[in-house]
Amino acid sequence: MSVVVGIDLGGSKIALGLVDAENRILSRRRIDTKSAAGLDNVITRIAEQVDSLRRELPAGQGITALGVGAPGPVDHITGDLLTLVNLPGISNSPFRRVLSQRLGLPVALDHDAKVAALGEFYFGAGKKRESMVYIVIGTGVGAAIIYEGRLIYGESNTAGESGHMTIDPHGPVCHCGSRGCLETYASGPALARHYAAASGEKIDGAQVSKRALAGDRAARQVLNEAGWALGIAVASLAMTLNIELFIIGGSVARAGDLLLKPARATLPGYAFQAVAARVRVQASQLGEDGAVLGAAWLARARGKLG
Amino acid sequence: MSVVVGIDLGGSKIALGLVDAENRILSRRRIDTKSAAGLDNVITRIAEQVDSLRRELPAGQGITALGVGAPGPVDHITGDLLTLVNLPGISNSPFRRVLSQRLGLPVALDHDAKVAALGEFYFGAGKKRESMVYIVIGTGVGAAIIYEGRLIYGESNTAGESGHMTIDPHGPVCHCGSRGCLETYASGPALARHYAAASGEKIDGAQVSKRALAGDRAARQVLNEAGWALGIAVASLAMTLNIELFIIGGSVARAGDLLLKPARATLPGYAFQAVAARVRVQASQLGEDGAVLGAAWLARARGKLG
Repeated sequence: MSVVVGIDLGGSKIALGLVDAENRILSRRRIDTKSAAGLDNVITRIAEQVDSLRRELPAGQGITALGVGAPGPVDHITGDLLTLVNLPGISNSPFRRVLSQRLGLPVALDHDAKVAALGEFYFGAGKKRESMVYIVIGTGVGAAIIYEGRLIYGESNTAGESGHMTIDPHGPVCHCGSRGCLETYASGPALARHYAAASGEKIDGAQVSKRALAGDRAARQVLNEAGWALGIAVASLAMTLNIELFIIGGSVARAGDLLLKPARATLPGYAFQAVAARVRVQASQLGEDGAVLGAAWLARARGKLG
Repeated sequence: MSVVVGIDLGGSKIALGLVDAENRILSRRRIDTKSAAGLDNVITRIAEQVDSLRRELPAGQGITALGVGAPGPVDHITGDLLTLVNLPGISNSPFRRVLSQRLGLPVALDHDAKVAALGEFYFGAGKKRESMVYIVIGTGVGAAIIYEGRLIYGESNTAGESGHMTIDPHGPVCHCGSRGCLETYASGPALARHYAAASGEKIDGAQVSKRALAGDRAARQVLNEAGWALGIAVASLAMTLNIELFIIGGSVARAGDLLLKPARATLPGYAFQAVAARVRVQASQLGEDGAVLGAAWLARARGKLG
């Protein structure tokens, strides 16, 4: 086992971590995505940071592969990026191949929720489990299902869009065109919208979480409703899949028990008692490091040249 | 490959089929469950019918294994039956083992929705597919998920209780204690209840389907609402699993397009367009034979002695 680089490609930043054979992050780098528009520019900035990380290694030791988590769908044949709403510059580009050719290293690429789930599965809250559902709640809501040790991709590689499970068919309209999706209750923009409706004040979802942690009553009520919707989604998923560990990550999950307690409290009302009793809903253990460590795992497992 | 017996153990009848190496049902038997109470009696009646089927075979040819689909949960270690609400006499009994010992043949046992799904997967509407969801709508609503060729059992062997996915969290109370479960809209008893509320007449779910087929407007409206709920469940499952074939079986599904058309019409309103466009919602191809053929497949794949 060797040293690899795990990369979390986000809408606002790219985080890189140099990861050793014991899956420790030896060193980190961060690139502001806004300063890195366009495929060529993004590749160049990443290559610079990978070179900079390489120089930290003792002479004779090199980086052997790269893994990348991307904020959108990935073509499962070419391993390249499909439409990325938040990163239009590199959408539909042969990103994986170009990065691999530029650096002369094997590169693996997958959807960010799946990559973060791999991190938690191998190194975090899912360690020693065979199955788990990871739900990431941020600007959007996504999921990754690991069943008996394997990620579920689905027949067209779009599995895990559980943010668009219906919570209430008469609920608010979602930007996807549907109604009452989990995302309309629990995403960062949903928290912001609901907080503005309650208080008249416009702040973003992360700030709603912060205020809730500081005791703001309207913010707590908004998180309470988000937790209620999350609990219903967890209940329906648990009834169908009988997976017993749900790990909640992403920026909104930083509210911790203010989100998770109402989810846990809602669950028994919408699942068989025997099922609800075995389900654990817990916060991600690795936070932002989950994606970097998952990407590093992916680099070793599936990195390919060119 | 040899001749086996597939058994569909139901709440009101036990259906047996003698199945040859080409997966054709050569001969059938049927036992009224009400006349067969208690483990010993059920085993004796099944053994008699298996003997009777055996006598139809040419001299020198025998039955090599039995497969059974049971209307309730199965212990995945012992292969025996857990609580069967509709068959209290053989609930929690070492049914599989006793049947195997009595006949001196390997026996395999599994949950009826999974067994019927195996039938459709290998010999019916799911032939040539790698993944599918089978939803059985009768007295209850159950599901079986086959993903990349394998049934999903879950961590405690209770996967597939999708009849208790939440369609509307403010919906009618379900007998399971939850609210707005798919079962409260689409099961036979739900159809009967809704029809009685609309027309004042008490008939059972199968009769509601029959009347709808005959043109009864209230019955059609009831099936329309059931299809709406089914469409929402299919949408949420498709978003999460990205499985593209949904096969609907069970007695209520005999209403065919009167149930499936509203389900198909609801789907695009509750799933991404790209996902909805690839989903097929179709009636089971094998009907009641699905469980017998699935049980026969199970007998060959997993039958074990004693």
